[in-house]
Amino acid sequence: MDNGALVLFSGGQDSATCLAWALERFAHVETLGFDYGQRHRIELACRDRFKAALVRDCPTLAAGLGDDHCLDLAVLGQLSDTALTRTAEIRMREDGLPNTFVPGRNLVFLTFAAALAYRRGLRHIVAGMCETDYSGYPDCRDDTIKAMQVALNLGMERRFVLHTPLMRRDKAATWRLAERLGGQRLVEDILEETHSCYLGDRSERHAWGYGCGTCPACNLRRKGWEEYLGQDTART
Amino acid sequence: MDNGALVLFSGGQDSATCLAWALERFAHVETLGFDYGQRHRIELACRDRFKAALVRDCPTLAAGLGDDHCLDLAVLGQLSDTALTRTAEIRMREDGLPNTFVPGRNLVFLTFAAALAYRRGLRHIVAGMCETDYSGYPDCRDDTIKAMQVALNLGMERRFVLHTPLMRRDKAATWRLAERLGGQRLVEDILEETHSCYLGDRSERHAWGYGCGTCPACNLRRKGWEEYLGQDTART
Repeated sequence: MDNGALVLFSGGQDSATCLAWALERFAHVETLGFDYGQRHRIELACRDRFKAALVRDCPTLAAGLGDDHCLDLAVLGQLSDTALTRTAEIRMREDGLPNTFVPGRNLVFLTFAAALAYRRGLRHIVAGMCETDYSGYPDCRDDTIKAMQVALNLGMERRFVLHTPLMRRDKAATWRLAERLGGQRLVEDILEETHSCYLGDRSERHAWGYGCGTCPACNLRRKGWEEYLGQDTART
Repeated sequence: MDNGALVLFSGGQDSATCLAWALERFAHVETLGFDYGQRHRIELACRDRFKAALVRDCPTLAAGLGDDHCLDLAVLGQLSDTALTRTAEIRMREDGLPNTFVPGRNLVFLTFAAALAYRRGLRHIVAGMCETDYSGYPDCRDDTIKAMQVALNLGMERRFVLHTPLMRRDKAATWRLAERLGGQRLVEDILEETHSCYLGDRSERHAWGYGCGTCPACNLRRKGWEEYLGQDTART
């Protein structure tokens, strides 16, 4: 359907914001998550909670919310011995990429998303890839995503459109987008019900949400929140 | 490694010929198969048997044969209710595609192949996609494969080369290629140890190999064999 979308929704801040973005823009929105043995599987548990919060707190926005899908990609864990899927320290490799890098992970996600969108008759695919808070992942780059759109459309004989609304937004801008889409209620739902921490730590609620507070994902999230607050105060 | 290759090797005639092609061209050749609940899983069992026959009958060609990998892609079966994965009749759909079509299946295969090649340090990826015996699969087209190479290389920051030696060969030409690569011993190994039949039937050995003899894959295989024999006779 031409005004139907599939959102890659992991349960993190970025994809939760993408989901709200898609709900504002498309009449019917389905969601897709992947279970691939990631260490922050707790993120997956946040998916249902965030969607329930959205329906409760932002009912108009959530009106077009449709089916949820979760695909088992344990095979991706088989391919990887990086820190995301094992109990190992997260660090930078010699080539400048974090050792959490699963080569081509987002290409796999997008290919499965397109296969599912094909089956569901959905034209638009929305994903949270971002170049701005770029941590060295080549499969998040705009060039990659646009090349993938061409390859997927040739290979499936469809006219899918890949949307990456966060591509050029930093984390502070992502918070501002959430505020515009659903006001403070949406911002609070994202703070409370999404997860970013690589270590899966939800023992303490900070101003910027839950997390260990020290891993790269927590650092990025806290910094973005503080920038957003600062800009917000400056505007007032 | 610059002269290392990964061959998508299903255990069918085409990928077996691709394996021989890669062994002639590259110093080190690894193989990759996928288990995705396909109805012709018997094909997977042919993989080891064909490789053992190759080592026995064509030892010079097989000298560079390295590790085998098999990835569990049961998730692909979850996405599909087509005839390849269920007990249903194989037929043409209204849009001209056979109902065995799993949208983007080859895109998924190539993406996993590239991820594995990345991990194994192999530069070349060899796959049996073919436009000539084209049965309506858009993910076998040359345009698709070349677009995928661009997307994979951008997304993984590598310079993989995708080789599809059968792209413009029909089945008779594929037999001639096998004959050139390994003589009658290789031709016989492919006849005896590879599998094409959609129904997984290996109860009877025909001149062209095993199979039910009536499904589209058997028809294609028999026709190609007869053409190859005819041309062979004409040359004599």
